[in-house]
Amino acid sequence: MLEQEITIHEILHYHVDAFFKKNNGKGVKNMSKAAKDEEKLNVGMLGYAFMGKAHSNAYRQMAHFFYPPPATPVMKVICGLGDAEVAKAKAQLGWAEGTTVWEDVVKRKDIDVFDNCGPNNMHKAPCIAAAEAGKNIICEKPLAMNAKDAEEMARAVKKAKVKAMVAFNYRRVPAIVLAKKLIDEGYIGKIYHWRGVYLQDWIMDPKFPLVWRLQKDLAGSGPHGDLNAHILDLSTMLVGKVSKVCGMTETFIKERPLEGAAGALGAAKADAKKMGKVTVEDAAIFMAKFENGAVGTFEATRFAKGRRNYNRIEINGSKGSVAFNLERFNELEFFSEDDPKFAQGFRTINVTEGVHPYTGNWWPAGHIIGWEHTFIHEIYEFFKAIVEDEPITPSFEDGVYNNKVLDAVLESAEKGTWISI
Amino acid sequence: MLEQEITIHEILHYHVDAFFKKNNGKGVKNMSKAAKDEEKLNVGMLGYAFMGKAHSNAYRQMAHFFYPPPATPVMKVICGLGDAEVAKAKAQLGWAEGTTVWEDVVKRKDIDVFDNCGPNNMHKAPCIAAAEAGKNIICEKPLAMNAKDAEEMARAVKKAKVKAMVAFNYRRVPAIVLAKKLIDEGYIGKIYHWRGVYLQDWIMDPKFPLVWRLQKDLAGSGPHGDLNAHILDLSTMLVGKVSKVCGMTETFIKERPLEGAAGALGAAKADAKKMGKVTVEDAAIFMAKFENGAVGTFEATRFAKGRRNYNRIEINGSKGSVAFNLERFNELEFFSEDDPKFAQGFRTINVTEGVHPYTGNWWPAGHIIGWEHTFIHEIYEFFKAIVEDEPITPSFEDGVYNNKVLDAVLESAEKGTWISI
Amino acid sequence: MLEQEITIHEILHYHVDAFFKKNNGKGVKNMSKAAKDEEKLNVGMLGYAFMGKAHSNAYRQMAHFFYPPPATPVMKVICGLGDAEVAKAKAQLGWAEGTTVWEDVVKRKDIDVFDNCGPNNMHKAPCIAAAEAGKNIICEKPLAMNAKDAEEMARAVKKAKVKAMVAFNYRRVPAIVLAKKLIDEGYIGKIYHWRGVYLQDWIMDPKFPLVWRLQKDLAGSGPHGDLNAHILDLSTMLVGKVSKVCGMTETFIKERPLEGAAGALGAAKADAKKMGKVTVEDAAIFMAKFENGAVGTFEATRFAKGRRNYNRIEINGSKGSVAFNLERFNELEFFSEDDPKFAQGFRTINVTEGVHPYTGNWWPAGHIIGWEHTFIHEIYEFFKAIVEDEPITPSFEDGVYNNKVLDAVLESAEKGTWISI
Amino acid sequence: MLEQEITIHEILHYHVDAFFKKNNGKGVKNMSKAAKDEEKLNVGMLGYAFMGKAHSNAYRQMAHFFYPPPATPVMKVICGLGDAEVAKAKAQLGWAEGTTVWEDVVKRKDIDVFDNCGPNNMHKAPCIAAAEAGKNIICEKPLAMNAKDAEEMARAVKKAKVKAMVAFNYRRVPAIVLAKKLIDEGYIGKIYHWRGVYLQDWIMDPKFPLVWRLQKDLAGSGPHGDLNAHILDLSTMLVGKVSKVCGMTETFIKERPLEGAAGALGAAKADAKKMGKVTVEDAAIFMAKFENGAVGTFEATRFAKGRRNYNRIEINGSKGSVAFNLERFNELEFFSEDDPKFAQGFRTINVTEGVHPYTGNWWPAGHIIGWEHTFIHEIYEFFKAIVEDEPITPSFEDGVYNNKVLDAVLESAEKGTWISI
Repeated sequence: MLEQEITIHEILHYHVDAFFKKNNGKGVKNMSKAAKDEEKLNVGMLGYAFMGKAHSNAYRQMAHFFYPPPATPVMKVICGLGDAEVAKAKAQLGWAEGTTVWEDVVKRKDIDVFDNCGPNNMHKAPCIAAAEAGKNIICEKPLAMNAKDAEEMARAVKKAKVKAMVAFNYRRVPAIVLAKKLIDEGYIGKIYHWRGVYLQDWIMDPKFPLVWRLQKDLAGSGPHGDLNAHILDLSTMLVGKVSKVCGMTETFIKERPLEGAAGALGAAKADAKKMGKVTVEDAAIFMAKFENGAVGTFEATRFAKGRRNYNRIEINGSKGSVAFNLERFNELEFFSEDDPKFAQGFRTINVTEGVHPYTGNWWPAGHIIGWEHTFIHEIYEFFKAIVEDEPITPSFEDGVYNNKVLDAVLESAEKGTWISI
Repeated sequence: MLEQEITIHEILHYHVDAFFKKNNGKGVKNMSKAAKDEEKLNVGMLGYAFMGKAHSNAYRQMAHFFYPPPATPVMKVICGLGDAEVAKAKAQLGWAEGTTVWEDVVKRKDIDVFDNCGPNNMHKAPCIAAAEAGKNIICEKPLAMNAKDAEEMARAVKKAKVKAMVAFNYRRVPAIVLAKKLIDEGYIGKIYHWRGVYLQDWIMDPKFPLVWRLQKDLAGSGPHGDLNAHILDLSTMLVGKVSKVCGMTETFIKERPLEGAAGALGAAKADAKKMGKVTVEDAAIFMAKFENGAVGTFEATRFAKGRRNYNRIEINGSKGSVAFNLERFNELEFFSEDDPKFAQGFRTINVTEGVHPYTGNWWPAGHIIGWEHTFIHEIYEFFKAIVEDEPITPSFEDGVYNNKVLDAVLESAEKGTWISI
Repeated sequence: MLEQEITIHEILHYHVDAFFKKNNGKGVKNMSKAAKDEEKLNVGMLGYAFMGKAHSNAYRQMAHFFYPPPATPVMKVICGLGDAEVAKAKAQLGWAEGTTVWEDVVKRKDIDVFDNCGPNNMHKAPCIAAAEAGKNIICEKPLAMNAKDAEEMARAVKKAKVKAMVAFNYRRVPAIVLAKKLIDEGYIGKIYHWRGVYLQDWIMDPKFPLVWRLQKDLAGSGPHGDLNAHILDLSTMLVGKVSKVCGMTETFIKERPLEGAAGALGAAKADAKKMGKVTVEDAAIFMAKFENGAVGTFEATRFAKGRRNYNRIEINGSKGSVAFNLERFNELEFFSEDDPKFAQGFRTINVTEGVHPYTGNWWPAGHIIGWEHTFIHEIYEFFKAIVEDEPITPSFEDGVYNNKVLDAVLESAEKGTWISI
Repeated sequence: MLEQEITIHEILHYHVDAFFKKNNGKGVKNMSKAAKDEEKLNVGMLGYAFMGKAHSNAYRQMAHFFYPPPATPVMKVICGLGDAEVAKAKAQLGWAEGTTVWEDVVKRKDIDVFDNCGPNNMHKAPCIAAAEAGKNIICEKPLAMNAKDAEEMARAVKKAKVKAMVAFNYRRVPAIVLAKKLIDEGYIGKIYHWRGVYLQDWIMDPKFPLVWRLQKDLAGSGPHGDLNAHILDLSTMLVGKVSKVCGMTETFIKERPLEGAAGALGAAKADAKKMGKVTVEDAAIFMAKFENGAVGTFEATRFAKGRRNYNRIEINGSKGSVAFNLERFNELEFFSEDDPKFAQGFRTINVTEGVHPYTGNWWPAGHIIGWEHTFIHEIYEFFKAIVEDEPITPSFEDGVYNNKVLDAVLESAEKGTWISI
């Protein structure tokens, strides 16, 4: 019957009264079978800056679009530095309470989910404490400052038997999920090549201050942990694990002003001296061999003038190819040798249709969604995993693996040799 | 000092503590000078389908991103057909109450803003009643079924001295606002050409049912009122008014199944007979002469296979050109003859930076936003206009003009001649 | 067997000795069955400017790439204004002789093919004389200054029973031939929409002189005959004939300097007065209804800043769409609803493979060809038609039709009504 | 005066009589000051396959478009395997004589230029013999099977004091020359990143035979010497020399059918056994540090499904970026931070205008040229260098450097370490 063929998108266009009859979970597979409207999960969050803003938005939005939700998020408490800052974050981002003491958050009895959006050096201790307190955990990426720390975190989580996810949000880009489907269903064939770059340009001005992200003690590494972590995780999802890596790093601007770096180490030192040493790389590049025989290249930089947030990947297989660019978030490029010989070419799929992952919950075809939506999908998946007691990916184990490879690349860059994982 | 040069985007990346100090209205000009946190505006809304979902989202989101907001929206009551449907909409979309009686909504003393997301034939009466009750009004586009009705609505609003806006949301696409800036500041020069198409393909299957949008009594017209209305409004904003038009329309599929058209006229008739007559056009095309001497073409269709939501415009002037495609919402194409002769070309501006309209309130550069954000910007502007008691565009007068030109095109198509506006 | 599957492109890469065994006509259907190496056709050409240069190149190149050729072109004589100019053209372009007297060329016994690359007002008389002298004729487009003249020319050619082709060279773009194949083989389905624009910007400077192309007596019309002629012919090839048209024209800059317009009327008048009247349109737009029910838009302008040679067409049918842009000559965009629902999108076919029209005669896949190659394909087809005594398109009848529609559009623009063809 | 501002492109459009007065060398800097029409250079060529076809075309075309030419090429003799094949090549490609004995060609007194289009293992001996005989030499790339051979060739050439060029034709792509100009004139600033990939897919079918290009003895290497050689040379031209490299190679399909590999080693062995070993890599990837501090990545593969001839490079500097894709030959992407903050973005320059390198000799703006034109530009530059007795690049020294780096990458891949150049 035709009605069954009409996607939610089309329905939205014309079917006033049919809308809510149809909208329950369409476009998302395996919507929680036991979803109860009344079910709620209380959230406590660390961090109110960039990621805090994005995660808060996800908690506010999820239940309205993935309706009825697996469980409704209750935004209990937000935690961060500075009373005034926390107060404002609470008000703007929609949290019930605010605190500057994360130790309180992870211990509170009424918290079900601990969300760690803190800087990289604030991942380990709070996550372990939260695990020990029996909280489910979402932690921003990279999971830890290094693989050793990550392993500790994974052990704590495993021991506590809580759900724990690393927030590699690009796994929830609809176009990426579609790429995964194409690979899993054989449209790409045996994979030969991975090509991933994540290019930005926001610190190219030599006058840009020595902020915390440029200081190894606080950030762990530069674009390597920030950006390569992302594309490495995507390669893990789409291609598989790597067996060995060989990398190089470069710091183009070796000293930067301390003035303006408040919030990082700079605050205290700003008076004492003018310039501070950049202790992370500006660019990190590596080659990899995958366990399945594919070869790959990875590059992360903050010195690619004009590339604001250019996360571009390409996979070539024996039967087809896929390519994706985060700045054209809603599009997947796909080449298939199944097309007639005279009509082969990369096609641009506008991944916004009812048949596509997640997008049935949003708007009609061609009405694009944005970067922030990945977090909403992520929270949805995490809440579903909690309610249904199912495994979640990317798990803390995935986070450990990611940190391990990142570490190996840095070791390789230092030693000038290949490192096996 | 450098700090002043750092955009909110960059701040988000690194300035944990500076975030909220900076975020108040940056990226948006003329943020309400007298904004008070406590100020609230109570909203009553008609319609819970496609537009109802989009507007509801805007009310939920605005105050979190445009913080502090001009006034905080309070989602008081939603109104629509069917008790069960309204109850579900209320729950999913986040309204405090639901009703099936719009007359109650527009009269309620505690309502400040009436938002009309109903079908086109439900615009006139509720809007006039709301105006007479002193409510500020947002009405979906096209303003009315025809120019005569639109004029009545505009008169009622004028008489009541309430704020009233037609929800041509594409005026609040950042890339469109940037195009306007380029035009206003002389980068394009004297405008010679307008080229606008709005192409969709969602009713191309002849088995697609005779939904309300295909019935003239309910919808007024087909893609002409639905899609040409949009690009006509953009041309008004960017180029100016037209002096005369000449159009043609075509209905490619003249009869469609009544079955599946429930919610439209089909429900009752579905048993009686199998097929019903399509009474609106499937495509509407027109040429126009603008008052300023430019010439333009417009085309709206639902029969452009593969074009899901392809709203594409181009403007050529004596010094430069701009082009935009809704499916690449975050990008503006811009050609400037100010570039060196050997380096001229259309550049693709990723309109997601702190210096761009609205986007400073969202995410760092290159982190794209989506279609739904236009409504949030729209509600922000409307609330600001109410609080500051400033004019708002597109006004109901703009809506009247839009309806007038739409009517003239249909008259032209019928008579086979040019019609002066 | 594999060998048969290997295209000439691949062979070129690796098969040194197999090259010439394979190369004879591969990639071109119906290569002349009776081709004799010795067969030659002597050519006389009128005009040594833009088109003269392009056609000369085609005569020099054809036999080397379409080898063995249907017949080898012998470049006997070139004709034009000015002894010195003709002498130089002869030398540079590779002709055996030069003359300033076209009447001699069309009468010469040793001429088999007369190629008319003269300005529009020089098409009629020489072509008719050539036909009467029994010459095969290639004439540049538009065929004539108006439909009446074109009909006279077609009659002369028909009476003389010579082969005659209008040089609408874009019919020989490989991507266009592929589009035709897709349409003919049902990939596009029933056609609903044609959209064609041909945009240039080379006369936007008001100081640009009043050259012959801006004078009606010499050029017949402006971009209408120059550019709309082309896209109209493509629509005829790909969609079919139109039944009625409605157009508008505009002259944005009404007077221009005579100085610098030498070679046109300006030479004599340049001293007398400074400015002359532009007597052709700067832009011409029209809507059309096709005989098969499709609707279409056409636009030609020389005032689209940044669009150097932007000939862009799109066709939407019930099953798919094709789009083409002359500035990306080697690419065809193709949408097919035969693709899996989740993997639909416009694909970009790089039309440079052995399986594609003409391209097997050139280079391996991905090694693009250029605009000039259309003329080589055109001459190849024309020579083949002569040798095999087969019909050739676009014929002078096609040229007459083209002129008729162009005339009807201008009449429509003047009268402000639709004109039936 | 305006006339001087009008480019040849515009002239072609309208200036019938001015054409040849203007056309002499416009668009090309430093056209031979002493060019004499009568000057001729006699050419002898080795190889009639892919490159032989491309070079022959260049000799036939150059003097017609770069008119008057520095010297007119006279296509004296072509040389290759097989009497019949040579005879056909002679006829099709337009040579006066044919031979199967290259030793005769390089010794002939009437030969001024020896052009070596033979397979890689046929570069050394003929080139050295030609140098010793005092011939000017064009040799296809890579210059030799390895750096040692290349050095011998360079020594012979230096000793003989003849002009010698390696045919890295992509140095003569107009868009690449424009990129060079932008870099040299400071538009890009200090270079930080090079990113180059050259992707093809023509041997992905495991049934594809073991042709000569897959056999190390004949080809030297796989895509490394074929494709990396090209992008390495472009990086040398645009960025500079590298100081160290680290590479990896992979052979995805290790055995292939001998049948169908005739012309390579396969012919004799085809009966003896079915499969032969692939002795070159299928993909070669490397990282590099440039002498000027930039970092770079290079990748060449024949296993990138859907990438027919995807030579894509990108350079990021402190002030801007350029990017190029050979499949969009006529376009250069350029980002400049000199653009207004709100209007920055990668612009697509259609490199076909009179102000662009070489293109003034071809067609008006927007009328694109193709891959084959690089060879015409190359021959033009080489002939000019001979006539004017000026240095030519890429010289045999450049070829030696290229071979050295290629060798170092292979050594690095074998040893798993970085290799300094």
